[in-house]
Amino acid sequence: MNTRRDFLQLLAASAVTLPFIPLSGLAAKTKVVEEVYDGPVLRVALMGLGGYANRVAEAMKDCQKARLTGLISGTPAKLKDWQAKYGIDQKNCYNYQTYEQLKDNPDIDAVYVTTPNALHHDQVIGIARSGKHVICEKPMALNAKEGAEMVAACKKAGVKLLVGYRMHFEPKTLEVIRMRNSGEFGKIRFFQGNCGFNIGDPKQWRLNKQLAGGGAMMDIGIYALNGARYMVGEEPVWVTAQETKTQPERFKEGVDETIQFQLGFPGGAVASCLSTYAMNNLDRFFMTGDKGFVEMQPSTGYGPIKGRTHKGELTQPHFTHQTVQMEEMSEIILNGRTPVVPVDGEEGLKDLKIIDAIYLAARTGKKIYL
Amino acid sequence: MNTRRDFLQLLAASAVTLPFIPLSGLAAKTKVVEEVYDGPVLRVALMGLGGYANRVAEAMKDCQKARLTGLISGTPAKLKDWQAKYGIDQKNCYNYQTYEQLKDNPDIDAVYVTTPNALHHDQVIGIARSGKHVICEKPMALNAKEGAEMVAACKKAGVKLLVGYRMHFEPKTLEVIRMRNSGEFGKIRFFQGNCGFNIGDPKQWRLNKQLAGGGAMMDIGIYALNGARYMVGEEPVWVTAQETKTQPERFKEGVDETIQFQLGFPGGAVASCLSTYAMNNLDRFFMTGDKGFVEMQPSTGYGPIKGRTHKGELTQPHFTHQTVQMEEMSEIILNGRTPVVPVDGEEGLKDLKIIDAIYLAARTGKKIYL
Repeated sequence: MNTRRDFLQLLAASAVTLPFIPLSGLAAKTKVVEEVYDGPVLRVALMGLGGYANRVAEAMKDCQKARLTGLISGTPAKLKDWQAKYGIDQKNCYNYQTYEQLKDNPDIDAVYVTTPNALHHDQVIGIARSGKHVICEKPMALNAKEGAEMVAACKKAGVKLLVGYRMHFEPKTLEVIRMRNSGEFGKIRFFQGNCGFNIGDPKQWRLNKQLAGGGAMMDIGIYALNGARYMVGEEPVWVTAQETKTQPERFKEGVDETIQFQLGFPGGAVASCLSTYAMNNLDRFFMTGDKGFVEMQPSTGYGPIKGRTHKGELTQPHFTHQTVQMEEMSEIILNGRTPVVPVDGEEGLKDLKIIDAIYLAARTGKKIYL
Repeated sequence: MNTRRDFLQLLAASAVTLPFIPLSGLAAKTKVVEEVYDGPVLRVALMGLGGYANRVAEAMKDCQKARLTGLISGTPAKLKDWQAKYGIDQKNCYNYQTYEQLKDNPDIDAVYVTTPNALHHDQVIGIARSGKHVICEKPMALNAKEGAEMVAACKKAGVKLLVGYRMHFEPKTLEVIRMRNSGEFGKIRFFQGNCGFNIGDPKQWRLNKQLAGGGAMMDIGIYALNGARYMVGEEPVWVTAQETKTQPERFKEGVDETIQFQLGFPGGAVASCLSTYAMNNLDRFFMTGDKGFVEMQPSTGYGPIKGRTHKGELTQPHFTHQTVQMEEMSEIILNGRTPVVPVDGEEGLKDLKIIDAIYLAARTGKKIYL
């Protein structure tokens, strides 16, 4: 487990200017001026109380700028358990029929949606209508059409829409992006992302086309795609893809088991990616440029990222990704901070447009120009 | 440099039964029964005295079962230099107009062709016509049509046609193949081969479409393709490919700079490969199955191969690839030995058929079924 002190060290080491930093619960009581944070706190409701929401709730315990204040679930027993566990007011608990009443709730600034993919579109639009900011887990929606509607709805409602791209705040990843931007890899030539695992429980929603909108590509493949974009630092101009299904009884119609996809970038770099639900853990990024390379393995898992470049090992510290994400998202929503790599709805939409093209390319066998 | 003693240790450790093994030039004189080799020796002429021929000639100095006895070159000065350096009889030296007179030369059993790709077809057929066995450097020819004609010509002439697939004799590679055959990786799911380098001298024949028949794919890409086949242990059933050219002034029409290609195998495994002349050294194989994985880096370079599997590091010793290849090819030609992975003309033809399909797939954007 990370300590709050570790996290403070991260923040202190970062380029970010922080007004006040509290050391811990105890230290916060005996006010140490440089360590006290008395800036605004993002008060977050979690929507969809599954495994990932639990991870976010636990991670938020270490946040100073974000706090869990509300819950939305369709299961009364879950609401009751979570309410007790996290000390949430009854008046801040909602179900899927009542959550638009959020508009009258002054204790909640934003809702983090971690429900199955197919529900994101309507829920995000509903939350926007209630005047609350939205953080949506990725993929933001089932396709680009839905995504564009969500972006438009949030814009119209005047609320921010962010997507749970936790890697965009990960220190080793940011170091690689810094190196790329400063030309340390030279001209980028090739990116390779292998992302996959053997998925378990056949009854989970991720293997249900109606709820997931697809298979591995919508879940783990998006890491390779999004990674290709933030590692290369350009938007792809074409995509090709090949789907392979070896276990049709396990991966039904519309649920992709394994997709290989390739991307071409305007600067001439190419990417080769693998998305799979049917292989032992694959979590590796490799990128090479004219002047150097980087390899990261694991590259996107929850645990510490490990990697090296032509200059040596990446030594930036590890912190719980979701803690850092929520701290940074608080800054983005409340203070208008601009992150190094975007995490807004437009960013989510870019991935969705390419995922649409990947599925089209796999289905038709054609190179799709973006 | 490897010593002859190292090599003897390899042979002693191998499953191969050797009649006699000489220890060295000196030891061979003081006959030690178990170490004396007095079996047949393959007497080889080298055709095309370029850099690779030099590598083969040097490697053959450590061979016991193969010996350099002849030279074929279009450059009289080269013939003279080599003749002196390797002590080759004048009567065993030929040029491209005279080499079919090999049929009357009892000092030469086989010719190793290391000329530019475009010359292989006519030269191999010419050598076959002279009744000598042929070892042809890869790619065996420019395309499958040429390759099939070469296979047919050698068959008709009753001579053996082998292709310089040195990796098929490499100890770590053979260990991986043994592990795969014994099920230690489980069902094979994915192979990845990245093969490429930044090619130098723009005037070399490898960058001339007329002589090379293509670009990186014909030179370094074939390692990824051939590797996919010997690592997975199946013949692919489809291929897709994408070509990218960022430096058209360096890589002219018909000379491929970078090709990504993908293969599908009947058992459900897929492969993702990169062939390039425009990136810093890439030489990595990765393969994963249900039960384990292997990664090799370097995977096909001349120096020691390095690799590890889920069971640990691959520790098989390194020997000069071309030395082992020529010893084993002597056994194949003279004693009818069957290698673990084929190196005959049919094997070369299989690669050529797939290379044809890769170029077709890259040109048309279509998935090509094999």
